[in-house]
Amino acid sequence: MYEKRIQRVLEALEAMGLEQMIVSDPDSIWYLTGYYVYPFERLFALYLRRDGNHKLFLNRLFPVPEAPWEQVWFSDTDDYLSILAQHVDGTKPMGVDKDWPARFLLPLMAAYPGCRCVVASDCVDDARACKDAAERDLMRTASAINDTVMERAMAFIREGMTEREIADYIVAQYAVEGCDAMAFQPIVSFGAHAADPHHEADQTRLKAGDCIVIDMGCRKDRYCSDMTRTFFCGQPAAKHAAIHDLVREANERAEALIRPGVPLRDLDKAARDHIAAAGYGEFFTHRLGHFIGQTEHEKGDVSSATDLIAKPGMVFSIEPGVYLPGEFGVRVEDLVLVTEDGCEILNHVDKHWRSVG
Amino acid sequence: MYEKRIQRVLEALEAMGLEQMIVSDPDSIWYLTGYYVYPFERLFALYLRRDGNHKLFLNRLFPVPEAPWEQVWFSDTDDYLSILAQHVDGTKPMGVDKDWPARFLLPLMAAYPGCRCVVASDCVDDARACKDAAERDLMRTASAINDTVMERAMAFIREGMTEREIADYIVAQYAVEGCDAMAFQPIVSFGAHAADPHHEADQTRLKAGDCIVIDMGCRKDRYCSDMTRTFFCGQPAAKHAAIHDLVREANERAEALIRPGVPLRDLDKAARDHIAAAGYGEFFTHRLGHFIGQTEHEKGDVSSATDLIAKPGMVFSIEPGVYLPGEFGVRVEDLVLVTEDGCEILNHVDKHWRSVG
Repeated sequence: MYEKRIQRVLEALEAMGLEQMIVSDPDSIWYLTGYYVYPFERLFALYLRRDGNHKLFLNRLFPVPEAPWEQVWFSDTDDYLSILAQHVDGTKPMGVDKDWPARFLLPLMAAYPGCRCVVASDCVDDARACKDAAERDLMRTASAINDTVMERAMAFIREGMTEREIADYIVAQYAVEGCDAMAFQPIVSFGAHAADPHHEADQTRLKAGDCIVIDMGCRKDRYCSDMTRTFFCGQPAAKHAAIHDLVREANERAEALIRPGVPLRDLDKAARDHIAAAGYGEFFTHRLGHFIGQTEHEKGDVSSATDLIAKPGMVFSIEPGVYLPGEFGVRVEDLVLVTEDGCEILNHVDKHWRSVG
Repeated sequence: MYEKRIQRVLEALEAMGLEQMIVSDPDSIWYLTGYYVYPFERLFALYLRRDGNHKLFLNRLFPVPEAPWEQVWFSDTDDYLSILAQHVDGTKPMGVDKDWPARFLLPLMAAYPGCRCVVASDCVDDARACKDAAERDLMRTASAINDTVMERAMAFIREGMTEREIADYIVAQYAVEGCDAMAFQPIVSFGAHAADPHHEADQTRLKAGDCIVIDMGCRKDRYCSDMTRTFFCGQPAAKHAAIHDLVREANERAEALIRPGVPLRDLDKAARDHIAAAGYGEFFTHRLGHFIGQTEHEKGDVSSATDLIAKPGMVFSIEPGVYLPGEFGVRVEDLVLVTEDGCEILNHVDKHWRSVG
């Protein structure tokens, strides 16, 4: 599995004309080797070579098991940047991670003044964007837990509860289900709070007629889920129920188009046009979706500005919303996996508006 | 005030032979300008020049007020790296922050192939290490709140409470005192848990005879506090009480030496020798202290390996500890400010062991 993943990165490096690359994002190194180390400010790097002579640079503080790659060990007191420099090929261009800090990059460049360094993390990020079979199962599992906990949260809600109580309940249920962690702090927004897509749950109490936006996700075996549903406490205003229908339809229209080869910007357009046709275009204030995997937001988005084309294995969110400042908000979000001939919607909680509490 | 701070950085740049520097750490930019922006993955930079023609590079998403520095605005859709390159002097060496990522640094270097870039953030970090009058007051205020909340926590503790309950109480009291936030998640460790200096508070309940290590800090008006006290639930074992006395004495011996000109490694040695003389040297497993300011750990430490010399305005922790695996642990920590002729201990909670609960 790791060999296949590395092979995809090497092919992308070849297309960029590169023979070598230093990978430094800990999530990317885990993806390519199965080793997870969070090195704080220390050097931790996977050096990939087209000739297959890969090396892993490791601080003795963070032991890992033996592996088929050469392991180069150093201590805090070693001149680890010289050790790194000795192991790379200073005569050829070097790919590096977009986030590799100057304190590592500049000494390496100083060791090889003629060596051209280029940002090459797209080679890894593009591989990570298309999930393989093992990752698809992990994404399904994380979303199945998210469905279960959303249903429980729905049953838990009562008029008079605070946003914070519901958010805490969701976090506790993730623990019950054996999650590693939340993918992000759950968003629970009542009434006018829902007009802010990123509202932080507070001590506000639920009142009859309020909308309830719940945007939540867990992390299980390193992979993340992310889903939003909008409910109402008791009976909604007719206008609010109609806007909920509109947003759900926008979500469904976008999802209905997903299959390999579709430009992701067409999905954004389908959802946005539907909302705009009803006169609410200016109140759908964000992109339609984002990629997700080991982190809740991975490289890639579903927006009017993207050039990405749907490919099998991509997982992203479809999350249209309408936000009426000072009044209320609605968002309906699923995660979707692009399959070989269409798509698989990873969330199964009913999307129609419902009264709870 | 900001001019004085910038002046200190410019003098350090001169000593490094640099005429210009790009500062990118948001805390450092706040320190030098009063503007705080957290730009996520976007470019945000203060360009300092020895000739005083400083410029601030700003994304329109993050508005700031007018300022005496030239403001260069750009949008996400602009070629902001070309804009940056046009404003710097590509004919002279350029200082950059140690953490500036490759995705900004490499394009700038590509625009000026002859321009030598060097890590120069020590020029800012060394200035930040010596707090000025305004900062000293902020450090005193944050530590005074920490004293108040530690006294309250001590009075709150009862046998049978969980670590988590006490940690939550501390966080709630920081909010009552108007803090921005915690400086870090409070550490509350009972009994054998205290043998792990970084134990995370959990649902374990306090039993008679347990030691209770509380390591806590708040953030108030951007500046942090950090203090540790160790109590006992009821009567301690005689051995544990004696080790508490030993660790407190080590803390006091180190603090008694602090004045300008003292090598910080001598403080570590004084504390470590005292603990070693009693036979517990191998159980004092970490450095004596760390610098602190806008973040809970700033550049600089108090250890056997440091070459730093005490200077007026430095603020660091003095936190000896003894950790007996599977049995218990003690740590006694104050923050200390180096003054013109000695030092000011910023914490005033009694350090002797006491029974609580």
